[in-house]
Amino acid sequence: MPRLSHVNAKGRARMVDVGGKPETRRVAVAEGTVTLSAEAFRLVRRHEVAKGDVLTIAKLAGIQGAKETSRLVPLCHPIPIDSIRVDLTLEPRTRSVRIEAEVATRAATGVEMEAMTAVSIAALTVYDMCKAVDRGIVIGKVRLLAKSGGRSGEWTRSRSTARVMLPDAGQKKRRRA
Amino acid sequence: MPRLSHVNAKGRARMVDVGGKPETRRVAVAEGTVTLSAEAFRLVRRHEVAKGDVLTIAKLAGIQGAKETSRLVPLCHPIPIDSIRVDLTLEPRTRSVRIEAEVATRAATGVEMEAMTAVSIAALTVYDMCKAVDRGIVIGKVRLLAKSGGRSGEWTRSRSTARVMLPDAGQKKRRRA
Amino acid sequence: MPRLSHVNAKGRARMVDVGGKPETRRVAVAEGTVTLSAEAFRLVRRHEVAKGDVLTIAKLAGIQGAKETSRLVPLCHPIPIDSIRVDLTLEPRTRSVRIEAEVATRAATGVEMEAMTAVSIAALTVYDMCKAVDRGIVIGKVRLLAKSGGRSGEWTRSRSTARVMLPDAGQKKRRRA
Amino acid sequence: MPRLSHVNAKGRARMVDVGGKPETRRVAVAEGTVTLSAEAFRLVRRHEVAKGDVLTIAKLAGIQGAKETSRLVPLCHPIPIDSIRVDLTLEPRTRSVRIEAEVATRAATGVEMEAMTAVSIAALTVYDMCKAVDRGIVIGKVRLLAKSGGRSGEWTRSRSTARVMLPDAGQKKRRRA
Amino acid sequence: MPRLSHVNAKGRARMVDVGGKPETRRVAVAEGTVTLSAEAFRLVRRHEVAKGDVLTIAKLAGIQGAKETSRLVPLCHPIPIDSIRVDLTLEPRTRSVRIEAEVATRAATGVEMEAMTAVSIAALTVYDMCKAVDRGIVIGKVRLLAKSGGRSGEWTRSRSTARVMLPDAGQKKRRRA
Amino acid sequence: MPRLSHVNAKGRARMVDVGGKPETRRVAVAEGTVTLSAEAFRLVRRHEVAKGDVLTIAKLAGIQGAKETSRLVPLCHPIPIDSIRVDLTLEPRTRSVRIEAEVATRAATGVEMEAMTAVSIAALTVYDMCKAVDRGIVIGKVRLLAKSGGRSGEWTRSRSTARVMLPDAGQKKRRRA
Repeated sequence: MPRLSHVNAKGRARMVDVGGKPETRRVAVAEGTVTLSAEAFRLVRRHEVAKGDVLTIAKLAGIQGAKETSRLVPLCHPIPIDSIRVDLTLEPRTRSVRIEAEVATRAATGVEMEAMTAVSIAALTVYDMCKAVDRGIVIGKVRLLAKSGGRSGEWTRSRSTARVMLPDAGQKKRRRA
Repeated sequence: MPRLSHVNAKGRARMVDVGGKPETRRVAVAEGTVTLSAEAFRLVRRHEVAKGDVLTIAKLAGIQGAKETSRLVPLCHPIPIDSIRVDLTLEPRTRSVRIEAEVATRAATGVEMEAMTAVSIAALTVYDMCKAVDRGIVIGKVRLLAKSGGRSGEWTRSRSTARVMLPDAGQKKRRRA
Repeated sequence: MPRLSHVNAKGRARMVDVGGKPETRRVAVAEGTVTLSAEAFRLVRRHEVAKGDVLTIAKLAGIQGAKETSRLVPLCHPIPIDSIRVDLTLEPRTRSVRIEAEVATRAATGVEMEAMTAVSIAALTVYDMCKAVDRGIVIGKVRLLAKSGGRSGEWTRSRSTARVMLPDAGQKKRRRA
Repeated sequence: MPRLSHVNAKGRARMVDVGGKPETRRVAVAEGTVTLSAEAFRLVRRHEVAKGDVLTIAKLAGIQGAKETSRLVPLCHPIPIDSIRVDLTLEPRTRSVRIEAEVATRAATGVEMEAMTAVSIAALTVYDMCKAVDRGIVIGKVRLLAKSGGRSGEWTRSRSTARVMLPDAGQKKRRRA
Repeated sequence: MPRLSHVNAKGRARMVDVGGKPETRRVAVAEGTVTLSAEAFRLVRRHEVAKGDVLTIAKLAGIQGAKETSRLVPLCHPIPIDSIRVDLTLEPRTRSVRIEAEVATRAATGVEMEAMTAVSIAALTVYDMCKAVDRGIVIGKVRLLAKSGGRSGEWTRSRSTARVMLPDAGQKKRRRA
Repeated sequence: MPRLSHVNAKGRARMVDVGGKPETRRVAVAEGTVTLSAEAFRLVRRHEVAKGDVLTIAKLAGIQGAKETSRLVPLCHPIPIDSIRVDLTLEPRTRSVRIEAEVATRAATGVEMEAMTAVSIAALTVYDMCKAVDRGIVIGKVRLLAKSGGRSGEWTRSRSTARVMLPDAGQKKRRRA
């Protein structure tokens, strides 16, 4: 029977013991979207090419946020990290910033949370830098795209698990810009 | 002409100087949603009534996350905080956890980012606790609902700013559970 | 001749170099006690069965505190952690909360300090949540119960090392509740 | 009827809203004891007069720990701090280190937790520096001695609240060394 | 007789009690220099105009570092900060990066350490980003330029206090770029 | 062609992926200097022999600062650390405090930044403790002395790389005091 891994047999919270798990290469990729007003989008785009631009700052915040994961998410393990990549892309069609984070480690536990956290903190930073012109900004669809390594092996988000609808097609094309 | 507040006249990133702003009561409310699979939703609901339940842990993570805001979001100011409230509600119709955070301060700058961060970290914690049974979980619609205090005064999310579509109606009713 | 490990030959503080020590499984268990007034004890017990109960929050604080050990204790090494378990039990006979923490790692140095820190932070959290009804609460007998792994091998607290007196017998029976 | 201040009417954890409380001078004093073996006590005493001594390092750890209080104790408010004093005294009669911490602020909430945390972290640091010669060290009687300021006003530990017994007399005399 | 403010009458370390000091506007400006090899300087200059450039990242690190001051410097007070400005300028004549930081607060204690820390962390970040091409990089002349506010009032570095020699003239002209 | 390791082919900031690098013993040594006024130097020297002395506190701050490196320097990797040594020496001839830090690890990436950060934070702490008597204090010549381990192997600062001039001879003799 499936169980929440962070709840023990008595229903109490616990940190999973990863002491028996091998230290293998583990990678996770997550994404998220920040949807802006027309005006905020225009301003971000204008500053994309200037020094101190919004996307660079959000990227750095995402990288630093990933390193804080075990301090932010109570039952996460503190682990060394081999790499963190955070990319932000402007999506003019949907007036949004697409964020993608990839984290890798050689550890006894995966880095899904690090990738999800990197995306979330980068998204919050975009919000912070634009909120003076648009308080209505929405952070959406923060989710895992893929993971590899460890006991549970490979996992890739499929169409069928894409419960949250859909105008994804366009974004897929532009990924990794 | 509107400007990104965190970018100076030369297009460089800066922290806004709030030295001339009055220290007044400022409040911000934000929300977000975590959409689960049927199985994960059932497990979270089952543990809602037990000790160590998912929602309590996510709530605490949200409260602690709010206190970390200025360390996570690069251009945020470190400020004292008067209160942080984080509530999580199960929404059976949409198989989701709705998160609402309210933060208050007496400071020279607002707490929108603290409220948004509380929601984001609580959402990440729900994801972490459920990911073993459902890697496809999606964090969505993290956004500001209202703010008050400070120079810009009152702001409430209106229907018209609700650019991100819509099965909101149901959620509105259940708010503040 | 015995020496304080954190003091070098010249009497100056140092961090021990663990570079030559093997990375083996190391486990440490510590305990502590928070003694409450009759009224505070009754309130904690009442909330034990409700959501947001004192013991769950203190347990989480203990888990998160353990991860902060190397930042709190100046000469501790930052290490990855495999697992942290914190259990709190109500002891009606002594009107106290007994806290037990077990930490495990695969590292070049032990986790005694992580276990001791988990107990201390959990105890402080119990104090914090009860102080409005009882400022006289006392945190006591924070101490190591056992450790294994590493050069110094197995160690278990014996009766003879139990210099701090005694109404231990009762607690021993109830351990690991 | 008395209530745990960190639990709301529905029994859920909350951070108290201090927005309506005045920012007044608030002071708290706490103490604690670390009981050593004869050998560890001798070594600490020998290093008391040398550079890098145990007591200086533990004092600094206590000061820095006090500043971390709101990050360690989940429902504590982040506040500015006016002063932190941590004193450690050797008590030859009981072979113990007595720790006393005093914290002051001008804020809307008290600093009891900061004083208690300072004592606890200083005590953990003494343990860490002595554990190689004595794993049986016990941290005991961490408790508030007095507080002033705020709505609840003055509070001083009286004989009657001294539920944890007794070889206190000797220590009282040597306080503030 | 002058005394080190962080050492009490008995020669023990202490945190100064700022409880009696007024909360006034206080500003501090500090500077520092990172001297590069010809090749590293050329690479930094080339990336100055690209996204993700060295100077932007170092600036952000400086801003975030300033917020960490009270956690890094043991006897510093945690205070709210009104603004942090960090500017980095390329100095072709000396093949160096000049860093200037200005921090402001309304608090009971000054922000000299915050400005000095901002410069130091920005300098370390420049080093980190260039060390693959030049391990010989030197961080130099980190020092206060001016401060205002508080009991000690205005202070500006004069020629005569400029004990560390001198090819300053060129740098002075280019300040605040 | 040489490239900044933290900038990718498109000129964007990145964290280097160390996943393919072996976990070997890596050591780095860095140094720095804090130049004081005659009066400040005299006071530091007087307190060198007392409890709570400036050099001990700065040393501890350096050790703790090294552990914070990956949180302060945005593109640094979080790694376990085997040892941190920080020594401070008074240099009467130049009225300065010389700081030397040595950090060692078994990891996939080096510890140059940890050593440089230890020196910088120790230097800031000396500044903090002396600034009341001398605001003109200058932190200078923070630089790497040597590193070993990893792909790039051994590196030692040579005379020729000593671009920043010169009264080094005297310091070299007194090193490691």
